[in-house]
Amino acid sequence: MLRQLSAQPLQSRASIAARTGLNKATVSSLISELISARLVREVGIRAGGVGRPSRPLELDGRNLAAIALEIDVEYVAGLARDLAGRDLHNVTRVFDVAGKPPEATIALLASLVQELQEKVRSRGARVAGIMVAVPGLVDMGRGLVMRAPNLSADWRGLPLAARLHAALGEPRFSVQIENDSNLSALAEYREGEDAHVGDMVYVTGQFGVGGAVVIDGQLLRGALGFSGEVGHMVLDESGPPCGCGRNGCWEAYVGLGALLRRVDPKWDLTLDPAEAVEEIVRRAERGDEATLRALAEVGKWLGVGASIVVNIVNPELLVLGGYFARIGPWVYDIAMRELQAHVLAPDLGGCRVTFSILGFSAPLRGGTGLVIDHILSDPGSVTRKAQHSRRRHLS
Amino acid sequence: MLRQLSAQPLQSRASIAARTGLNKATVSSLISELISARLVREVGIRAGGVGRPSRPLELDGRNLAAIALEIDVEYVAGLARDLAGRDLHNVTRVFDVAGKPPEATIALLASLVQELQEKVRSRGARVAGIMVAVPGLVDMGRGLVMRAPNLSADWRGLPLAARLHAALGEPRFSVQIENDSNLSALAEYREGEDAHVGDMVYVTGQFGVGGAVVIDGQLLRGALGFSGEVGHMVLDESGPPCGCGRNGCWEAYVGLGALLRRVDPKWDLTLDPAEAVEEIVRRAERGDEATLRALAEVGKWLGVGASIVVNIVNPELLVLGGYFARIGPWVYDIAMRELQAHVLAPDLGGCRVTFSILGFSAPLRGGTGLVIDHILSDPGSVTRKAQHSRRRHLS
Repeated sequence: MLRQLSAQPLQSRASIAARTGLNKATVSSLISELISARLVREVGIRAGGVGRPSRPLELDGRNLAAIALEIDVEYVAGLARDLAGRDLHNVTRVFDVAGKPPEATIALLASLVQELQEKVRSRGARVAGIMVAVPGLVDMGRGLVMRAPNLSADWRGLPLAARLHAALGEPRFSVQIENDSNLSALAEYREGEDAHVGDMVYVTGQFGVGGAVVIDGQLLRGALGFSGEVGHMVLDESGPPCGCGRNGCWEAYVGLGALLRRVDPKWDLTLDPAEAVEEIVRRAERGDEATLRALAEVGKWLGVGASIVVNIVNPELLVLGGYFARIGPWVYDIAMRELQAHVLAPDLGGCRVTFSILGFSAPLRGGTGLVIDHILSDPGSVTRKAQHSRRRHLS
Repeated sequence: MLRQLSAQPLQSRASIAARTGLNKATVSSLISELISARLVREVGIRAGGVGRPSRPLELDGRNLAAIALEIDVEYVAGLARDLAGRDLHNVTRVFDVAGKPPEATIALLASLVQELQEKVRSRGARVAGIMVAVPGLVDMGRGLVMRAPNLSADWRGLPLAARLHAALGEPRFSVQIENDSNLSALAEYREGEDAHVGDMVYVTGQFGVGGAVVIDGQLLRGALGFSGEVGHMVLDESGPPCGCGRNGCWEAYVGLGALLRRVDPKWDLTLDPAEAVEEIVRRAERGDEATLRALAEVGKWLGVGASIVVNIVNPELLVLGGYFARIGPWVYDIAMRELQAHVLAPDLGGCRVTFSILGFSAPLRGGTGLVIDHILSDPGSVTRKAQHSRRRHLS
């Protein structure tokens, strides 16, 4: 019912009954519950048509908010978005995540949540859940970071969800974690330029290079949720060193660190990565030779690596996100040439290649989207928790 | 209903009605149709239980047969199997497919079908459909071979299904084509040692190297059916030449031709490939240095290439088929070492690695399986065609 209303607002109870196949009495009773939980509201205008007038309904998105947090090598960020999809507040902090113990990052994330939560409260809403985007292998079910090679070995087997929940003082709402590229791919599937293309490969460049595969609109998770690790496909065992300790991973050719070091071996990698990308763009625009050569090299390897994924998956769409989108003008032609040279199927097997328009915010958008999804799928999770908490207050 | 009976024979009409959710009158009427089409038969014994006794039913697999054909670089093969899954006849012919025009191969395939069809008839059955396994990119819907780099450029855009159907004198049954690795993967999913593992990657070594990905028990086909082209993942652009005209494809490292040339640069590649593999095994068993070195090299690159697919898909099972299964004892440990070195997820992300026990017959088994599937899904396709044909005789 909530999905119905989310997709098409201002429906009557009768229309919802017809569309969901539930009978009208059931719909009326459920709607009453959702209205008292403030997830649905009646709208003042009257629906047209014959028969007894009924007040149309819409999703009441103002009272609940989702928070997404993102951990990257050199920064953390957060976004609060209400159930109606409106951004309430966002925040970014440059921070040496890789160089500090995880506890420091968790404390910083907790302070970000407090800042976001205050904004949410000042809008009269409450937080319904938190999703943390992690640049590494994640066991979603247990809330564990299994491995995050671009952060540090301290993140191996880290119960991040539980630690952050504890750092927040064990709030009512749940804290979950997910791989950042998976969340970006979900955002791309929903809000990207080519939203709702069913078979999609998403590749994102930050310091790390991540990816995700969407098949028939569903994230390919694999046996244990470790799919999409395209950044660590080995392209040449004797290639440049990678943050994961191996050599010649794709990331070691096309990650942001690889580009910056190629432009200038002494580049200060602790500076804001978004700022670093802008500096690269400025140098490329004024025709700096070293920068253009480095971008051409990234373009070449971008195409070589992407061809492998395209050969395996035969997607309808390949989306290049993260910083790749920003350097698109200098890498697209070169990458396409390599793709065409290495993909066996004619015309890339029908695959279109685009750059993401979502920018660095993709993991955060995907993260809030997933929290909102959980609420729409199981509104009881919000109302039940409230009751549970009331009971706890009484005992 | 047919799937029900295939999965569990000797059911009563009442039991089928209960399991399918159809009412008993509908089931009785459909069963009568299937009995007269000789797809189902009543068995003499009586089902136990209370109430009016009813004669149990089973799939009548004896009257219809599926034929699968396989085209490889150096041979063609065929298998006839009845609906009950019993092999009726199989045949292999060494033939220089790559060196001759496609017409010669099509004529040979037609003669194989005639031989198989005679055996089918001598068992009192008739052919219900043909599936041809092709080592290349296949447009299944249009029956076109798009590209088959290990055969020749003449196979590009070849309407193989229509040509073979014509060469057979336009019979009633349909001729379809599918990628050989896809068919092998289906056989593995149904008849392999680890049958019914939902998330599986299948990699098969013949002269070409093919692959297929099974997700939740379904073949990943991709946008246009060109997925699973693992053989042409580029491992090193300056690597050895590949049959596809590129350099450094995975196939150029681990295909059977690469192994044979590494053992002896003058190996006669037109000999029966199965016999060549046995010769390699004999040499390895007696400790021939050049052979052991070549096998170690294949093992290494098998692991490197497989790690890429495992990083992307995170399968529960990786099955190595074709000739890889036969050389397993000499490549397993080396391949596993490389896999563990290059897969980011701990313990290969839960992926088990096995060798296929189906041998060279996997594409044929998968091919007959798919024909039988079509009949079970749409028995009308067989009965309707018979009627259509009768009408044609009358006109």
